[in-house]
Amino acid sequence: MNRFMNAKDTIVTEALDGLLRTAGGRLARLDGYPHIKVVVRTDWDKSRVALVSGGGSGHEPSHAGFVGAGMLTAAVCGDVFASPSVDAVLAGILAVTGKAGCLLIVKNYTGDRLNFGLAAERARAQGLKVEMVIVNDDVALPDLPQPRGVAGTLFVHKIAGALSEDGADLDAVAAAARRVIEGVVSIGMSLDTCTVPGSPKEARIPQGKAELGLGIHGEAGIEQVDFTTAKSAMEMVVDRLAPHVGPGPLVALLNNLGGATPLEMAVLAEELVRSRLGAQIRWMVGPAPMMTSLDMQGFSVSLLPAGKAEEAGLLAPASPWAWPGCHPVGEVAVTALPDGLTPIKPIPSSNPETRALIETCCHIMIEAGSDLNALDAKSGDGDTGSTLATAARALIGALDRLPLADHTQLYRAIGLELSQTMGGSSGVLLAIFFAAAGDASAAGKDMPDALKAGLDRIRQVGGAGLGDRTMIDALHPALEGLPVGLEAAARAAREGADATARITRARAGRASYLAESSLAGHNDPGAEAVALLFEKLAARERTAAT
Amino acid sequence: MNRFMNAKDTIVTEALDGLLRTAGGRLARLDGYPHIKVVVRTDWDKSRVALVSGGGSGHEPSHAGFVGAGMLTAAVCGDVFASPSVDAVLAGILAVTGKAGCLLIVKNYTGDRLNFGLAAERARAQGLKVEMVIVNDDVALPDLPQPRGVAGTLFVHKIAGALSEDGADLDAVAAAARRVIEGVVSIGMSLDTCTVPGSPKEARIPQGKAELGLGIHGEAGIEQVDFTTAKSAMEMVVDRLAPHVGPGPLVALLNNLGGATPLEMAVLAEELVRSRLGAQIRWMVGPAPMMTSLDMQGFSVSLLPAGKAEEAGLLAPASPWAWPGCHPVGEVAVTALPDGLTPIKPIPSSNPETRALIETCCHIMIEAGSDLNALDAKSGDGDTGSTLATAARALIGALDRLPLADHTQLYRAIGLELSQTMGGSSGVLLAIFFAAAGDASAAGKDMPDALKAGLDRIRQVGGAGLGDRTMIDALHPALEGLPVGLEAAARAAREGADATARITRARAGRASYLAESSLAGHNDPGAEAVALLFEKLAARERTAAT
Repeated sequence: MNRFMNAKDTIVTEALDGLLRTAGGRLARLDGYPHIKVVVRTDWDKSRVALVSGGGSGHEPSHAGFVGAGMLTAAVCGDVFASPSVDAVLAGILAVTGKAGCLLIVKNYTGDRLNFGLAAERARAQGLKVEMVIVNDDVALPDLPQPRGVAGTLFVHKIAGALSEDGADLDAVAAAARRVIEGVVSIGMSLDTCTVPGSPKEARIPQGKAELGLGIHGEAGIEQVDFTTAKSAMEMVVDRLAPHVGPGPLVALLNNLGGATPLEMAVLAEELVRSRLGAQIRWMVGPAPMMTSLDMQGFSVSLLPAGKAEEAGLLAPASPWAWPGCHPVGEVAVTALPDGLTPIKPIPSSNPETRALIETCCHIMIEAGSDLNALDAKSGDGDTGSTLATAARALIGALDRLPLADHTQLYRAIGLELSQTMGGSSGVLLAIFFAAAGDASAAGKDMPDALKAGLDRIRQVGGAGLGDRTMIDALHPALEGLPVGLEAAARAAREGADATARITRARAGRASYLAESSLAGHNDPGAEAVALLFEKLAARERTAAT
Repeated sequence: MNRFMNAKDTIVTEALDGLLRTAGGRLARLDGYPHIKVVVRTDWDKSRVALVSGGGSGHEPSHAGFVGAGMLTAAVCGDVFASPSVDAVLAGILAVTGKAGCLLIVKNYTGDRLNFGLAAERARAQGLKVEMVIVNDDVALPDLPQPRGVAGTLFVHKIAGALSEDGADLDAVAAAARRVIEGVVSIGMSLDTCTVPGSPKEARIPQGKAELGLGIHGEAGIEQVDFTTAKSAMEMVVDRLAPHVGPGPLVALLNNLGGATPLEMAVLAEELVRSRLGAQIRWMVGPAPMMTSLDMQGFSVSLLPAGKAEEAGLLAPASPWAWPGCHPVGEVAVTALPDGLTPIKPIPSSNPETRALIETCCHIMIEAGSDLNALDAKSGDGDTGSTLATAARALIGALDRLPLADHTQLYRAIGLELSQTMGGSSGVLLAIFFAAAGDASAAGKDMPDALKAGLDRIRQVGGAGLGDRTMIDALHPALEGLPVGLEAAARAAREGADATARITRARAGRASYLAESSLAGHNDPGAEAVALLFEKLAARERTAAT
């Protein structure tokens, strides 16, 4: 058993109870389990025409999912792919039918016709007004005298439901239902068969093929066709439907047969609108699972001529969540990209001291490249040094266009340069570091505090903290020491970097995927880079001072 | 390729366009295809806090499906399972953010954190107020410092969305989002892996196993467990969640990971409510696909402590259809079966003439049994005669309890007897025939007209017409002739029955499945039975008259 179920015999009753648990008191079931499985509205006073539908289960959310204000009054549910009994249908009719009468909406299958038909007779014998309509929208087999009822049934539920809700009488509701049935056509396509609970899956449709014109009970399609793209699939479906529709505006119902993903269904919606019938499609219901065939990875399209009455019925409010609404079909609304996507180029300015500091830092990184690579090779792919050196060279090349005299703009500009020249996570993190430092600088912070603000931000965004074996383990103590002086910052950075050699469980970054043995005894290359930077800066300061 | 798609490179843009086509102008996309895939509300004036979320695609309806009043302001969509670029996120932020600022809701994946994080910095550099929260609700790996963000994200979207809609400021919206993130825990289970578009499917989970604690990008679960029933599956999930929740009331979100059927999801909902945490679950969102993993046949459960603020946010209206609503969880409402299911037993009465007529008809059918069986064997399973004879014997046995003196009640009583003693379609059809005749009799029709009303009804319910090679081909002309007399009726029935031997394409009933060669030259057994009945009745009338 590869289904989330307990037993074939209880799947339908358990699923209905699951539905009823969360219906907030709006739905109830009749006390007839296991044979009588009928879901009814609780907010129903029998003053209007009752709508009763149903049939075998396995088509969820049909039919119980469509019970509610504006749609069905009761759903009579059989076992999976099995018609409910006459008694079950009669119970449904009697439970919801008052003087206004009842319309039975039945899909065209012999079992359903007979069982609903006899139940209708029994109810009539008790003095109730009962009408029955048979939905036969499937055009898979053009010559078949008894076309199946498939997803077009939803149009009947919705349009008749709206009329009933408005207080129309039984004749009017039944006439509207018959008009819908007269007009609606449907066809389905699938890439795989459905899996009937408790039965082995039939491997009928080979890879690269699709079945066109299949039923909703695992019946084979009328033909197997080559499947290439969503576009060609929709074209085949439209080709079958087109001969049955006139030139006027249409409502399309795009039904997920159960196992197609929302992503696929949305692509199919786009292809339906782009198809040769697309220009006629004024409204769309779905894409959504409405009349499924268990887990069948397929879809069906139903088309209904869109008259005023039909539009009004489809647009009327309905309380069942499973009804996805009927939406106007139009062009894709496209809005211009916002301004500000291309960063404003800072106005270059000069500041010899700042320029020298940046050049110094960059040269330190370039010189440390091979050592850092060697360190990284012990626990990673050995490119930390090269990555930093490349970025440093790029930054040196950019010095002439940087706003060196404006620290706030400079931080931001450095962040932008790094995000454009350094790949990977570390490039993005450094870009965030400098951008946040720029914001802090704009807010009046001095350099140590601006850099600390940058650090706080990358800790938030990157998710790493102290002791996680990242460059933060050196950068955090360095920035804490910086107000005292470069020497203090360098000592603190070194201590922090060396401590990373004893951290054998990395909690963030790439090293978190590595075994302890490959980490022990080696400093984290990022932390080491920070320590080297501060040490070399401090050494130059000493040299300059002597 | 076994997916409804055109190409891996266009699947996301085509799906988004499909969504936008039917958004009725409420949604637009930014003009940045293919790299910038951002869906925005069109009814947005930037006066309130913007909510921007997103990430890789393949989780539909997340995130574009949740853009709309009361939820997200913009969704930034990457390719399937790939984070959107910094530029794409920045475009989303800039398109919808005004003075009230913007909250970024990001699932805890490195790529998303970095790209949303850097985009936030860029937006801040342009003077916008931007906050970012990281959702990390997955409790699959209890010790992981960076738990993944999964379906619990929906709680954040909805509760923050409601606050934004109400005009709360950025601090309040972000604080509420952080409270939700602090409280929410999730875990998933699947019976199969997902199929990544353009990639072969990984057969990782053997039959009889399930994966517990899996990610939404095809990452393997933390363990493979034995799968037996929906009940045991839900128990395992609840066991993982229970240590993380307090004793107070909870909101549960039951998410379809993509490929589970509505039937399975409803069974799982029932099992969740029946579980040991069930008594604490006061509200439920779903079951519905909300944060899917393409076609993964699995589900996830997210639990959030239900405080007043959370309840208010979850119950507030939201326009995106994909939001299934938050519903109170309660007992299954059960309503008593209606009266009238057990047919009222008619009061027996006597009428020697009627009794004799019924007995005669029954004996004719009993005598004809073997001949009709032989005829049926030529095109069917050879039991038409036996079936009719059995029913005839049962009817004779019931004569003492029939209301023989009241024709209206008698028709109905005969229909009831036949429906209880005859199996199969023909039993139901004969029951409908007599029940409808009873209704017509109640309305004042005489016997020929009452029987015609019965015939009309079985034509409607059974779907067969004249010339379809059924008993109707004899019964219809017989009833037309009946007002003239039994002789005329018998002649007409015989002609009709004999004509069925020339009908080689049956359009209804069992014979419609048979080849022409097995039908040609033999009368339809049902039509023959009708002809025999009228012929024998006419013969007895002649005998009685002489």
